[in-house]
Formats: sequence, C-alpha cells, structure tokens
Amino acid sequence: MSIRKNQIKSKIGKPPGSLIFVGEKNIDKTVLTLTEYDEESYDSRVIKSFKELESLHINNKSRKIRWLNVNGLQNVELISKIGTLLGIHSLNVEDVLNSYHHPKADFFDNGIFIVMKNFEMKEDKRLSDEQVSFFLGENFLVSFQHNPEVDTFNPIYERIENGKNVFRKSKADYLLYVLLDFILDNYFLVVEELGEQIDDAQGVLLKNPTTEDLMRIQTLKKYIQKIRQAASPLRDILNSLLRRDSALINEETIIYLRDTLDHQIHIFENLETLRDSLTTMLDIYLSSINNKMNEVMKVLTIIATIFIPLTFIVGIYGMNFKHMPELDWKFGYPIVMAIMIAIAVSLVWYFKKKKWL
Amino acid sequence: MSIRKNQIKSKIGKPPGSLIFVGEKNIDKTVLTLTEYDEESYDSRVIKSFKELESLHINNKSRKIRWLNVNGLQNVELISKIGTLLGIHSLNVEDVLNSYHHPKADFFDNGIFIVMKNFEMKEDKRLSDEQVSFFLGENFLVSFQHNPEVDTFNPIYERIENGKNVFRKSKADYLLYVLLDFILDNYFLVVEELGEQIDDAQGVLLKNPTTEDLMRIQTLKKYIQKIRQAASPLRDILNSLLRRDSALINEETIIYLRDTLDHQIHIFENLETLRDSLTTMLDIYLSSINNKMNEVMKVLTIIATIFIPLTFIVGIYGMNFKHMPELDWKFGYPIVMAIMIAIAVSLVWYFKKKKWL
Amino acid sequence: MSIRKNQIKSKIGKPPGSLIFVGEKNIDKTVLTLTEYDEESYDSRVIKSFKELESLHINNKSRKIRWLNVNGLQNVELISKIGTLLGIHSLNVEDVLNSYHHPKADFFDNGIFIVMKNFEMKEDKRLSDEQVSFFLGENFLVSFQHNPEVDTFNPIYERIENGKNVFRKSKADYLLYVLLDFILDNYFLVVEELGEQIDDAQGVLLKNPTTEDLMRIQTLKKYIQKIRQAASPLRDILNSLLRRDSALINEETIIYLRDTLDHQIHIFENLETLRDSLTTMLDIYLSSINNKMNEVMKVLTIIATIFIPLTFIVGIYGMNFKHMPELDWKFGYPIVMAIMIAIAVSLVWYFKKKKWL
Amino acid sequence: MSIRKNQIKSKIGKPPGSLIFVGEKNIDKTVLTLTEYDEESYDSRVIKSFKELESLHINNKSRKIRWLNVNGLQNVELISKIGTLLGIHSLNVEDVLNSYHHPKADFFDNGIFIVMKNFEMKEDKRLSDEQVSFFLGENFLVSFQHNPEVDTFNPIYERIENGKNVFRKSKADYLLYVLLDFILDNYFLVVEELGEQIDDAQGVLLKNPTTEDLMRIQTLKKYIQKIRQAASPLRDILNSLLRRDSALINEETIIYLRDTLDHQIHIFENLETLRDSLTTMLDIYLSSINNKMNEVMKVLTIIATIFIPLTFIVGIYGMNFKHMPELDWKFGYPIVMAIMIAIAVSLVWYFKKKKWL
Amino acid sequence: MSIRKNQIKSKIGKPPGSLIFVGEKNIDKTVLTLTEYDEESYDSRVIKSFKELESLHINNKSRKIRWLNVNGLQNVELISKIGTLLGIHSLNVEDVLNSYHHPKADFFDNGIFIVMKNFEMKEDKRLSDEQVSFFLGENFLVSFQHNPEVDTFNPIYERIENGKNVFRKSKADYLLYVLLDFILDNYFLVVEELGEQIDDAQGVLLKNPTTEDLMRIQTLKKYIQKIRQAASPLRDILNSLLRRDSALINEETIIYLRDTLDHQIHIFENLETLRDSLTTMLDIYLSSINNKMNEVMKVLTIIATIFIPLTFIVGIYGMNFKHMPELDWKFGYPIVMAIMIAIAVSLVWYFKKKKWL
Repeated sequence: MSIRKNQIKSKIGKPPGSLIFVGEKNIDKTVLTLTEYDEESYDSRVIKSFKELESLHINNKSRKIRWLNVNGLQNVELISKIGTLLGIHSLNVEDVLNSYHHPKADFFDNGIFIVMKNFEMKEDKRLSDEQVSFFLGENFLVSFQHNPEVDTFNPIYERIENGKNVFRKSKADYLLYVLLDFILDNYFLVVEELGEQIDDAQGVLLKNPTTEDLMRIQTLKKYIQKIRQAASPLRDILNSLLRRDSALINEETIIYLRDTLDHQIHIFENLETLRDSLTTMLDIYLSSINNKMNEVMKVLTIIATIFIPLTFIVGIYGMNFKHMPELDWKFGYPIVMAIMIAIAVSLVWYFKKKKWL
Repeated sequence: MSIRKNQIKSKIGKPPGSLIFVGEKNIDKTVLTLTEYDEESYDSRVIKSFKELESLHINNKSRKIRWLNVNGLQNVELISKIGTLLGIHSLNVEDVLNSYHHPKADFFDNGIFIVMKNFEMKEDKRLSDEQVSFFLGENFLVSFQHNPEVDTFNPIYERIENGKNVFRKSKADYLLYVLLDFILDNYFLVVEELGEQIDDAQGVLLKNPTTEDLMRIQTLKKYIQKIRQAASPLRDILNSLLRRDSALINEETIIYLRDTLDHQIHIFENLETLRDSLTTMLDIYLSSINNKMNEVMKVLTIIATIFIPLTFIVGIYGMNFKHMPELDWKFGYPIVMAIMIAIAVSLVWYFKKKKWL
Repeated sequence: MSIRKNQIKSKIGKPPGSLIFVGEKNIDKTVLTLTEYDEESYDSRVIKSFKELESLHINNKSRKIRWLNVNGLQNVELISKIGTLLGIHSLNVEDVLNSYHHPKADFFDNGIFIVMKNFEMKEDKRLSDEQVSFFLGENFLVSFQHNPEVDTFNPIYERIENGKNVFRKSKADYLLYVLLDFILDNYFLVVEELGEQIDDAQGVLLKNPTTEDLMRIQTLKKYIQKIRQAASPLRDILNSLLRRDSALINEETIIYLRDTLDHQIHIFENLETLRDSLTTMLDIYLSSINNKMNEVMKVLTIIATIFIPLTFIVGIYGMNFKHMPELDWKFGYPIVMAIMIAIAVSLVWYFKKKKWL
Repeated sequence: MSIRKNQIKSKIGKPPGSLIFVGEKNIDKTVLTLTEYDEESYDSRVIKSFKELESLHINNKSRKIRWLNVNGLQNVELISKIGTLLGIHSLNVEDVLNSYHHPKADFFDNGIFIVMKNFEMKEDKRLSDEQVSFFLGENFLVSFQHNPEVDTFNPIYERIENGKNVFRKSKADYLLYVLLDFILDNYFLVVEELGEQIDDAQGVLLKNPTTEDLMRIQTLKKYIQKIRQAASPLRDILNSLLRRDSALINEETIIYLRDTLDHQIHIFENLETLRDSLTTMLDIYLSSINNKMNEVMKVLTIIATIFIPLTFIVGIYGMNFKHMPELDWKFGYPIVMAIMIAIAVSLVWYFKKKKWL
Repeated sequence: MSIRKNQIKSKIGKPPGSLIFVGEKNIDKTVLTLTEYDEESYDSRVIKSFKELESLHINNKSRKIRWLNVNGLQNVELISKIGTLLGIHSLNVEDVLNSYHHPKADFFDNGIFIVMKNFEMKEDKRLSDEQVSFFLGENFLVSFQHNPEVDTFNPIYERIENGKNVFRKSKADYLLYVLLDFILDNYFLVVEELGEQIDDAQGVLLKNPTTEDLMRIQTLKKYIQKIRQAASPLRDILNSLLRRDSALINEETIIYLRDTLDHQIHIFENLETLRDSLTTMLDIYLSSINNKMNEVMKVLTIIATIFIPLTFIVGIYGMNFKHMPELDWKFGYPIVMAIMIAIAVSLVWYFKKKKWL
C-alpha cells in the first residue's frame, strides 16, 4: 500500500502524460509478440527490437490483420515509443502504465482505446487482478499486459490458427471482441469460485468460527466489490461500442458484442446475489450466536437457581451454634432433606412451565 | 457446483457459438412435438426423426400455425441442426444449450428469440428452475425445454384444441403470448408458496429455532433473489415486444402482452414484500432472543444476589474457631436467622424497585 | 392464503379474459345503483334487473351524467354481461373480478379503465383493503366494488345532490376525480391511524414487550408496504390522466387532478417517515435491551466477585482438620473477619474505579 | 395527533376548495400588513379591515411594489375573501389553510403560488414548523403565515427600507426571492443546531444512556426526515422558477435564485451527513455495550472459575464423616492448602494464556 | 461549531452579495502573487498594493497568460475590490468568502467561476479542508485560497517554468485544468491515507478496542462522507466544462479534462469501497464480540454446573445433625466421593455431547 502511495505522490504536480509506471514493479522484461493472419495464412512471432517493430509499419493499413501483444510494462521508454509509433495519445499511454486505472473506452479518429481488468483466483484463495489495455486501429490491434511470465492469451492464438471459417475472415474488431469475451469468461470463473468460497465460509460460520474466519467474509466482500467496480464500466464500454458508429466496429461484430453484454449482465447479477448472501450470512450468524448463548445461559441459570438456595440451607445446619434445637431433633435430617427435595422439584416444575426445560 | 465450474472452464477460449451443453446432464432423450392448427383444424404429433422435420419446411410460410416443442437438449448435434434448419442464429443456439443464461429477447428480421426461466416449487420445498427458450418466426414458433420427462405445456395443447374462437384465429405471436403468460402464472404460484413458507419460518423462529431453521431463511432469501433476477428482465422483454414494430407482433396481441406486463409488475411487488418481511423477521428474531436472554439473566441474578451473601453468613458460623463468642450466645442462632431474613427481604424490595420482579 | 393459491392455480392455463372471481367469496348479492344528474336534476335509484339496465342505453351519449355503481362481484355472469353492454374490454372485466390486481389505468378510444385499492383500518387494528374499479365513458361512469353490505360512496351521493354550482355543471371526468380524491382521503386517514399505532408500539417496546408486541411491528411494516404498493402506481395513473389528451379528461378537471397528485405525494412521504421510524425503533429497542442486560450482569458480577472469595475463606476455617493452628489462636476469628472486610472493601473500591458502581 | 385526524376526517367527502382550517387552532387574530415601496419611497402599515384592503385594488398594476402579509389564518371567511379579491384559485386558498400541505409551486397566468415550511429550533429542543404560502402577482406579493404573535419577516422590512440600490429598484419577484432565501437561511440554522444536538447525544451515548437518551436519537432522526421532506421539493420549486418563462420572473432575478438553489443543495447534503452519523452512532453504541458486557462477563467468569472449585474442596474437609483419614494427617491442612494454591495458579495461568487477564 | 452558527446567524436577512467572511478567522494577511507567462518568457512576483494591481489591467486581453493567486481572504474590502476590478459577480465574491460553500461552477459571458475543496490529511490524522475558488477569464485566471502561510500551488509554478513545450504554449484554460487535476491528485492521496487508517482501525478492533477506537470509525466515516460530498459535484463541474461551448475552453483541453473526469470516477469508487469496508467491519466486530462472550459464558457455565451441585453434596455432610446415619458408616466418605466423581464425569460427558468442550 505504501509503495502505491509513494507512486501517487510522485505523480502529483507532474504534467499530464508524464510517463511513470504505477504498479508493483517486479519484472523487468518486455515481450512483444506479433501475430499476423488473414484467410489464408497465420503467423505468430516474437519481435526482438523496437527497430524491427518500426520497420513493420503496423498502422499502415495492410491486407493482413496484425495483433501486437506487449507484455511487461516496466520499460517506460519503450512503451512510450511504441505508443508514439502507433498513434496512441500520450494520456492513454499514461493510462496503460498506471495499473490502478478505472476501466474505460476512449474513441479517436484513428482508433479505440480500452482499459480493463482481468481477474484470476490464485491457489491460495487470493484474488489477483491484472490491467489489460487495448488499442484498436484500422486492421491492427495492440494489447498491453503487465506480466511477461504468464501468457494469458495462449488459447486465443490457437483459436486464430484454427478459426479459418469465421475468425480469420473477420476484421480486427472481431479480435477485440474475442479478447473482451475471453476476459469476461475469466470473470465468470472467478465469480463461480467466489460462490464456492462463500459456501465454504458459511459452513465454517455454523461451526466454531475464529476471528480469522470472520475476516475472511470481509475479504470476500472486498473481492466482490472489486470485481463489481471492474465489471460495472464494461457495460458502458460495450454499449459505446454497440452504439457508436466508429468505422472500426463492423456490423457483423455487433451481434457478438451484444452477446458479451449479456454475459456482463449475468456476471453482475451473480455478484449481486453473492453480496446479498454475505450480508444475510452475517445477520444469521449473529442470531445463531445469540441463540446459542441463550441456551448456555439457561443451563447455568437452572443449575444455579436450584442449587444455590439448597446450599444455603445445608449451610445453615453446618453452623456451630450451641443452641440450635433442630440439630437435636430425631428426624431433623430427613425433614431438611425432604424440604430441599420439595424446593428442587417445584423449581424444576417452574422451569418446565417457563419452557426452559 | 463443481460440474458447473468445469463446464464454464471448458467454454473459455472457445469461439462464440461453440455448441456445448451447459447444465445438469441427466436425461439423454429429445422429444420433438409438432402442433399444427388453424381455425378449422388442430393436430399434435411427435416427430420421430430429423429427416421428417426437414421435410416439413416449417419456416416456409404456411397457412397453418406450426408449433415445434423441442424437449431435451443433451443431443447437441440435433439441436444445432434444428437451429440451422429454422434460421436461428448460432449464438442463440448456444444460449438455448447454456441452461444458466440470463433471460433476454433478441430481435431479427426473420424472428424473435426469447430465453426465460420457468420455476416450480418441489414437494421437498426446493425451488427448481428450468430454462425455456422460444423462437418466433413467421407463422411458426419453436420452444426448447430441458426435461423430456415432464410435459410442462400440456394445458396449452388443450387450450389450442378448445380455443376455436380466439386462439385458433390468432397468429403465432398469440401462441407466444400464451406461453409467456403461462410461465408467469407459475411465478405467481411459486411466489404464493414462498409466502406460505415464510409464514411457517416465522412461526418456527418464535419458538425454538435450530441453526437449520435460520439457514432456511437464507435459502428463502436466495430463492426470492433468484426469481427476482429471472422476473426482472421480463419487464424489458415485454416492453420490447410492446414497443418494437417487429412485423411478427400483431396489433391485437399488444393488449394481451400489456396484461402480462401487469402480472410481471405484480409478481415483482410481491417479491419485494417477501424480501422485506424476511429482513424484518431476522431483526425481530434477534431482538426477541436478546429479550429472552435478559429475562433469564434477571432470574439468575436475583437468585444469586439473594443467596450468595446469605451462604457467606452461614459459612462464618460454620467456622471451627475455638474463640467465637457468638456461637455460645443463647439467641445467636435466631439472631443470625433474623438478620438473614432482613437481608433477603431488603434485596427483594430492591429488585421490586428496579422492576426486575 | 390457501384459498387464494387455489384460485390462482385454477386460472393457470385458462385463456385470457376467462372470467373467474378471485377473492374472498362471502357475499352473493349484487346491488346496481344508478345515479343520474345534470345542472337541474338529480336522481339515484337501484336497478332491479339486467333487463332494466339494458334498456337504459347508458353508453348512448345522453345529456345527463350517469353513474352506475356495481356493488358485489360474485355474480360473474352478470358482471360479464354488464362489461359487454358498456363496451369494457374482456381483459378489464377479468381485472375487475380479480381482487388482487395491481392498480393501473388503461386508455381506450371509448373510455378509461382504472383499478385501485381502498383501505380501511378496522376496529381490531386490522387493515382491510377493497379493490375498486372504474370505467369512464363519454358522459357515464361505472364503478365496481366488492362488498354490497357497505356503501362506501354514500358521502358522494350527498355531494352530487348539494353540488349545484360546480359538481352538477361538470362532466363525468369530474365525478371520476371526486371518487379518486375520496379514496385518497381514506389513505390519509389510514396513514394517520398507522402513525398512532406506531407511537403506541413504541411505548410498549420501552416497557416489557412480548413476542407478540414484536410481531406487531412486523405487521405494521407489512401494512405500510401494502399501502405503498397501492399508492405508488397512483402517481403514474394520475400523471397519465394529466398528460394524455384523452378527450374524456377536460381542461377544467386538470387542476383538480393535480391537487390529487399532491395528496398522493404527501401520503407517500408520510409512509416513508413511518417506515423509517419502525426501523430505527427496532435498532433502539435492541440497544436498550442489551443496555439493560449489561446493568443486570454488573449487579451479578459485583455480588459474586465480592462474596465468592469470602465464602471460600470461611469454608477454609470450616474444615475439620485436626491440626489447624489458626483455629486455636485467640484472635483467629477477629483476624479472619478483618481480612475479609479488607478484601470486600478493596473490591468495592475496584468496582468504583471501574465505574461499575 | 387526534385533532389532526378529526380535521382530516371532516374534510373527507367535502368538495375540493372547501375552505376548512387544518392546523392547531390557538390564535384567533389576523394581522394584515401592507408594505409599499419603489425607488423613492417606502411605507409599511397595518390594514384594519377588508373594506380598506378592497379599496386598494392591489392587483391593479401599480407603479409601486405592494406586499401584503397575512398573519393568522383562523378567520377562514376573511382569508377566502382575500383569495377571491386577489385572484387566487380556490384550491390554493384551501392549501393555504391546510397547514400540513406538501411544499409546491403552481403556475398560473395571473401569478405563481408557492407553499413551503419554515423551521425553528425552540429553546426546549423541539423543532417547530410553520407553513408559509406566497402568491406572486404582477407588482404585488401576498404572503400567508400562521402565527400573528410572531413577526418572522421583521428583518425583511428593514432590508427593504435600507435597500435603495438594489432591492427597491427590483420587481416583486426579487421580494419573493428574498423571502425564499430568508427561509432557507433558517433551515441552515436549524441544521447546524441539529448537528450540535447530535454531537451532544453522542457524548451521552458513550457514558451511561437512559432509554430517554435513546429515544432522543429517534426524535432527531424524525426531525432530519421532516426537514428533508420540506427541503426536497424546494429543488423542484426553484428549478421551475429558473426554467419557466413565466413573465413574472425577471432575467435579473435568475442568478439570485440559482444561488438559493445552491443553498438548498448544501442543506440537503448536511442532512444526509447527519442522518448517516445517527445510524453509525447506534451501531457503534450497540458494539460498545456488548464490548463492555464482555468485560463484565470475563471478570465474573474468572472469579467464579477460580473460587467455585476451591470452595468445593474446602467443603469436602468440612464434612463430618467419622472415617476421613486425611483429617487426622499431621500435614493434611498444609497439603490441601498447597493443592488449592496450585489449582488457583494454574487457572490464572490458563486465563493469561487465553488473554482474559 | 458555535462560531460557524453565529456567522450563519449574522448573514440571515442580509442582502445577497453581502460580503462577510465565513470561516475560521486566524490569519490576517493577504498575499497576491502574479504569474505571467507565454512561450518565451515566465515571471512570477508578489503584488504589493491594490494600486499596483489596478494598473496592470489584467482583464484587458494581453498576449501573455496571467495568473493572479489571492491567498488570505480576511480582508473583505480588498477581496471585494479585486472582484469588481476583474468583473466577478458580487454573488461569486460572496461564495469566495464563505468557506463552507458547496462546490459548483457558474458560467458567464466574461468568465467561468468555480468553487471546490482541497483536502489534506494532517500528521495527527485530522482531515483538513480548504476552499479554493477560481475565476477563468480571457487569458487570465484568478485563484483564491484561505491560508497565506502555506503555498499549496508551489509545484505548479515549477511546472509552468519548465513546461515550455505544452504548458506555456497553451491558453489559460490549460492552467485551470492543471490546477483542478492537481487538487484531485490530493484527493487520491487522502483516500489512500484513509484506506491505511481503516486497515489500522481493523487491526485494533480485532484486539481489545476502547470506546475511542470505535469513535475513530465514526470519524473515518465522516471523513469519507465529507470527501464524497466535495468530490461528487466535481463530476457535474467537469461535465459542464466538457459539454459547454464556452469560448474559454479550447478543443485541445477537452481531452485533458476528460482524463480528470476519469480520476474523479476512480476516487469515487475507492470511497465507495472504503465506506462498505467500514460498515462490514462494524458488523463483523459485533459478531466477534458476541462470539467471544459465548466462549466466556460456556466456561463459566461448565465450571458452575459441575461444582455447584457437588458443593451442595459436601454441604449436606457438613451439617451438624445429631442423627445422620451416613456419617457413621465406615465407607461413607469414599462412597460420597465416588458418587461425586460419577456426577462430575457424566456432566463432562454431557458437555462433550453438546459440543461445549
């Protein structure tokens, strides 16, 4: 958290478009993957240097669709040069580098810029999020990712290679749709996983939860909130793609994007249900604790109410006064015992009447 | 749940329109029922093979209204072929097969596609939901259901047979309306049933609820949420039918659809009331537990406060010190007894004053 | 509730406009009252038979305003014939007969159909609601009520008789306004009554409430919700009357309807305040119970903490060991007493410091 | 409350515009104050009779601005005659007399009618509200107040007298603005006062609150709700003044009214913050009670857990059995004491480990 | 608070535009800083007297951009003269002086007036807010701040000096954007800081919180509410700048302002998450207290339930009755001991079964 605050501090007072990387700096590599395809051919290769990239003239309208995936954003200078090369506005390059940016879409004459989050539920039940940015130009798409160690988009490469009928006949906007839809499918998975974790948490709550278990509920709520905030602007982004007559979005892609919008709505509803569940869960848990405590208190009260008076009575006859006539009575002991049994029985009867037993 | 997650996982990275069945696979049969009717005639029969279906040329505009009910969606290949045959978009066929789809309506030039949920409250108080999809073409309607064991639409066949005056004079859009309205009537029933279950739950809460009873409230809340999420998009669906000048919706059907919209609003309000009831119920329950606990505590405190000091006093005179002058006093015993009675009486008076007794 | 569910069940799968009475069937009579008036004359009489009604040709535009009040809706056949006679759509006749219908207004070329609820707070603090429907045609108005035993509209007859200056100069839409406003005034009364009951409930809560008192709060919440759901669509109904250029609503009536809309808003706000009050009341009640319990616990703890250790000490010297030197000491008894007084005093001091005393 | 219900009852079934006073009747006087001013002159005097008022022809457009303040509304006949004289619609006169009316603005060709609430926080921390109505005509303004004992508008007279530069050069709409703004300034004061009372209530809650203190919170919540409901329609009223091209609102006044709208927004936000504070306050209070109770319970449990077993042990050796070998042991007494010390020490160690000590 | 109420009181009944300083009066100095720049030159100097300012003719359109920063607003007369000199509306000058004003933007022919809040988290974790106002004219900008001791805008001067490429080529609207963005960056910092404080508060809550710690949560909630109320109108302000074709906002600045709007949305979402966290935190805390109390109660109940009956039994044989046959039995003592062990063992078994142990 402190790192993040410092990074924010260091940006204050800087001019807009100041290119500073804001995020967890851990990996220093940048991998550029260029994929070219059309109906007949498909090729995917790693670009070694910026020189090589420059010589490709990606934003010169070519017959082939070209997709450049930039993975690893620590090298600010390189990212900035790529931005300039492909005609991305400096403010958008700043957005690419700031890994805490709000999802959004910007429309320009030469392209559409989109920032969004990709989520993954890690093995240790931590929710990890990665920022992914897209710039769709005429016949090309650039995507920016943070972690060059992980190749999130691997299944997409396969789909392009195999997608002779639809995919490779379509324009670059179809590629954008596929990537958006792919990320939203990850949302689905994460939401399902959250649902299972919430069911687990409920099981634990009903047994004997520790403070850590209670804190887990807060963590789950935060995760739900996080995904909601990432998923909510997607509705606007998708609607703006659906509505706007940007020449880059083709008529044929609209129906696919509408399908993606349906998914977004579905994810949102599931999150709503999960959030509701967590709130009710806490209420029910509180009720159930108090209910159990009530049971415990009744046991204590019954035992104490029966035996405390009796103990007092036996205490009386344990006193050492010289002059206590009852002690000398022949039937003193059985009489006292009988009185005590009578008291105990009537108290038990009283508790039965009060429905405590 | 785990099955569902795997199904979702298996869809990630697949092209759109990938036809994979997502749902609880348990029944492998598909029953195709074709109903043909016009003012003069009515006929309903089971179609044996896809060949037979193909030869019917359902989407060739015929004089008669034709309704094909497809029950059982495990046979993905068959469903896919039916979709292609009738001109249903591959994305919509995908929606038909994904039994967790969000209710929606899609409008095409050649038809209207609708997905929605049908609910039933089972004998064991479980809410079961089934996804039902419709495709309305010119003079024909296709409906898709999941469970070929159960013939949900039986009452509709009767209505067509008997409905010489209105039903059989109307177009296929009237059939669509009848099916929508029929499903919404099931919502009514389920909501009424939920209302009764909530009343039962309230009765249990006031007695001696177990943790399972408390969990039942959460289950009821989830059911209400589930129906809300299924009923909520129906407003949009109905409004889009009412507004859109799709040539497939006739002027005469509009007034009926408006009536269905009224029902949707009524269902929604009832759900709102039920949800409100559940929340208040939990609050009142929590208050009532704490109130009872307060009563229990008072009894314990009164008994303990009266007898603990007295037991201490009798303990003093049970000590075996050689030199305790009081023990030898003639009236030592009655004096101590009198003192103890005085203490008990004043404590009772004190509790009366404090309104604890 | 069960009756209602059966009635709903019996409607499922029936064609729209199937005329089945849905409500609490208890009274079998139908009373038809016809009121005719214009500037010069006023007459109100009971219609004996449907024949007589038919011969009146109510929907033939006459010079006089004619108001037909149909009270008692068990006779489905009669209601249906009246509907057909006056040109009411069969779906609306169905609405008239279904006493659980949502308030709404339908606009037709030949008239305006309105359904709404009328409320009354009974002597036993039960909220009773009755459905009232109106059909406004040119120069006539039909109203439908459920209970022929009670003449809700009596004050209106008087107002027509006395209202030479405004009422009897106005058209039928003014009569509709008067009836709507009259019903809304009943809402006011009921809301005031609810306010008083909530104040009473609060008084009870602060004393020693039973579970029944807590349930009363839930009932009051349900009543508020019920009235809200009945009052809320009135805004839309009134707005649609105010906006729509239905030739049946005259310019002069608009200002009166706007006044009625003001009343609706006021009622809604009062309900909002009452609902808020109930929620806060429960919160405060919960706090106050726990606060009282805290007081009780402190008393118990103070008494137990002081006397339990002392009782232990006296117990020690009550042991019968042969070799206990203290027992033989001359000042053993006063020393032990002094030690115990010291312990008691320091505990009291400790509790004072902790502000428990 | 009961008075109010009766007044409402007496209005039911009465024709609209029936002039009945609805409010707390306590003062029977009506004071008419006429203020005339223009750039050169200023005069303010009391009008003695309706005759005198009639002779002034206030709504004949004069060169001077004329402001008639009607204070005291018991005299229904007089108010009604004033209404007719100045061209106020009978429904609006009814609104003036009904002191429970919802704030609103009505626009007519001959004027603008406004109803609103004025608040004052009394010495005894009761919130008093007064209804104030305005009718703005061409070059005149009539204001209606309920309490002739109090001259709320005194500071305004001074401002007119001193306001040669702006005030007396402006039209009657400026006077209306000044009065609206003056009343909103009172809202500010009341909201500040409520803020202070809420801070006080918080201080009390943290100490040792009585049920009355808890009820105070509910009262404060009701006050906030009351002011919200009075302030909320002011936004619409002001917006309608700002938008509508009623010839009575001059271009120059618009900027002042926009300023008043800013104030309304600010008041609303403060109320929102206060409401939020009260809710959180109750939650925190509940947590803090339970926390304190937990502390109390721990003390009780520690004391009881240590001494109850020890008391049992000393009880054993207090038994009078003939054959108890331990009693005759030479070191029986010290051994038992040592065992008891060991038990006490290990329990203390156990509680330390559990962090209860 | 009391000072503020008096200041509000003193304004009531005053004419609009009455220039009274409303805020915490502590510093009496006013520092005027004039910064002039264009592509070639940059100069920043302190203006000594109003005379000097007058002679500059700031609002005469010059080639250079001129920025006047007025720091310290106690000198009402001076501020008023500056306002008149630069053509600021008297109502806006009043807004500048009232440090409790709601953020807003007013558009005039000669300029745009903006009021907003700047926040800072002090060392002692108090949130301090300062009101900042801007007036953008043609080629000049005036800014008003409250505290001449602190030079908030220092980093901006540096940016102008260094910003030869973009900043000094842009118009005055770019300067306005930079200042708005600079203030919003401070919001980011404060929100991050609040996030850290909330995390700290959570840690404390899980240990052993005092009432002060609970109050801290309320304070944090108030801070969040305060920033929300300051940030919320910024959306409208920015949107009005983006939409309005005020000639003062240039096409090139629009994209920067849109970026600032993104920041506003991001801040708002973070605040939403923080608010949610605080609410859940309190719920979880309440649950965890009650859970702990339950544990404590169980210990007490187990100990008491086992030993209270046993103590009663040993009490019986401590009675001094002459005729108690058991006391003389040879195995009386071991038999009683065995019975007591049996009771203890069965109680422990009972508690194990009840899962209390």
